[in-house]
Amino acid sequence: MAAKEIKHVPEPVLRRLPRYLQILTRLKEEGLKEVSSTRIANELHLDSTQVRKDIEFTGIIGKPKTGFLVPQLIHAIESFLNWDNVTDAFLVGAGSLGTAILGYPGFNNYGINIIAAFDSNPEKAGGTIRNIPIFHIDKLPDLSNRMHVHIGIITVPAASANEVAAKMIDGGIKAIWNFAPVQLRVPKEIIVENVLLHASLSVLTRKLGQQIKDQK
Amino acid sequence: MAAKEIKHVPEPVLRRLPRYLQILTRLKEEGLKEVSSTRIANELHLDSTQVRKDIEFTGIIGKPKTGFLVPQLIHAIESFLNWDNVTDAFLVGAGSLGTAILGYPGFNNYGINIIAAFDSNPEKAGGTIRNIPIFHIDKLPDLSNRMHVHIGIITVPAASANEVAAKMIDGGIKAIWNFAPVQLRVPKEIIVENVLLHASLSVLTRKLGQQIKDQK
Repeated sequence: MAAKEIKHVPEPVLRRLPRYLQILTRLKEEGLKEVSSTRIANELHLDSTQVRKDIEFTGIIGKPKTGFLVPQLIHAIESFLNWDNVTDAFLVGAGSLGTAILGYPGFNNYGINIIAAFDSNPEKAGGTIRNIPIFHIDKLPDLSNRMHVHIGIITVPAASANEVAAKMIDGGIKAIWNFAPVQLRVPKEIIVENVLLHASLSVLTRKLGQQIKDQK
Repeated sequence: MAAKEIKHVPEPVLRRLPRYLQILTRLKEEGLKEVSSTRIANELHLDSTQVRKDIEFTGIIGKPKTGFLVPQLIHAIESFLNWDNVTDAFLVGAGSLGTAILGYPGFNNYGINIIAAFDSNPEKAGGTIRNIPIFHIDKLPDLSNRMHVHIGIITVPAASANEVAAKMIDGGIKAIWNFAPVQLRVPKEIIVENVLLHASLSVLTRKLGQQIKDQK
């Protein structure tokens, strides 16, 4: 049941909506009251029909000529992405990537609140990074169950990622944001979103290679 | 001309190919000689027709029953992504995200070699991170031109990202890998690949919100 309903919203739509929010937040700060899908499309070099269709998924209806009221459109997108309910998250791997994630500005605006970090290094346990307490990884399942944490972020090396995922699932975590360059083996009801840096790089290097070839 | 040729390969294909490489590298280590697209598809929970079609883009042709020779398939994908030619890159922003990127394992395998980092903080200039020298940002255009660097990586906060992009373009950089949560304003011939962490998060939070709603 759940899987079917989720399918109604294609992932590319979910990935574009935060970009609209970014533009809308800036326009709101600049004092703009109303915005058209064409304006958003132009800012992002996208097709305006695509922007209009993406926004339709959120259920908001624009006015024929003027478009949308900026604050209402922001609210519609945030609510659609479940970003108006901040969900607690645990992060595992207090290295430089973990530190970078903990320092990324405004995750609260994006619906998550990282409340604790974990590491397998006993020397890191007991410390803090950017005011977030660090615990030993062995404490994760128990703490996660007691605190009803649903989101886990993996920033450990590939070799330990599956072990960490297993601990998260033990702790009742339902959704994993995975930065380790490895395919996680998890039950199918667990939501996994991979941040594949090398996949992003492939688009860049392929296009650059093509451009250089074409210029020769 | 260039733009048209690039269009022939859809971006989702370019993003999936590195995942196949990841599986193939592991299978090769395990001593496997031949692999079918079905096997790769099963490992990644993808559709085997999609995997077969993606691989066709690289120009390699499999044998009817056995599929592909593992080393040949690895070579075909790497060559297609231009990962067999390692391209030098500069990174700007020597904070925790920059440090994390510099420490990400095996970028050389993904076609880039980060040869220097830059920062606006004069105290960081002259130092190193993971053996990569750090220079002051003002030195970037000149160094980049002299060394013919074509890839720039932006790991500075959103507020300074456009300024950094301008310096990179001054230095002859053709492709920007942007980690700052902002839309870069660059000439259209510049290749920009954004790593939008909040876009990735939107898929996760939306699915989790939906799952929780469905269970109520």
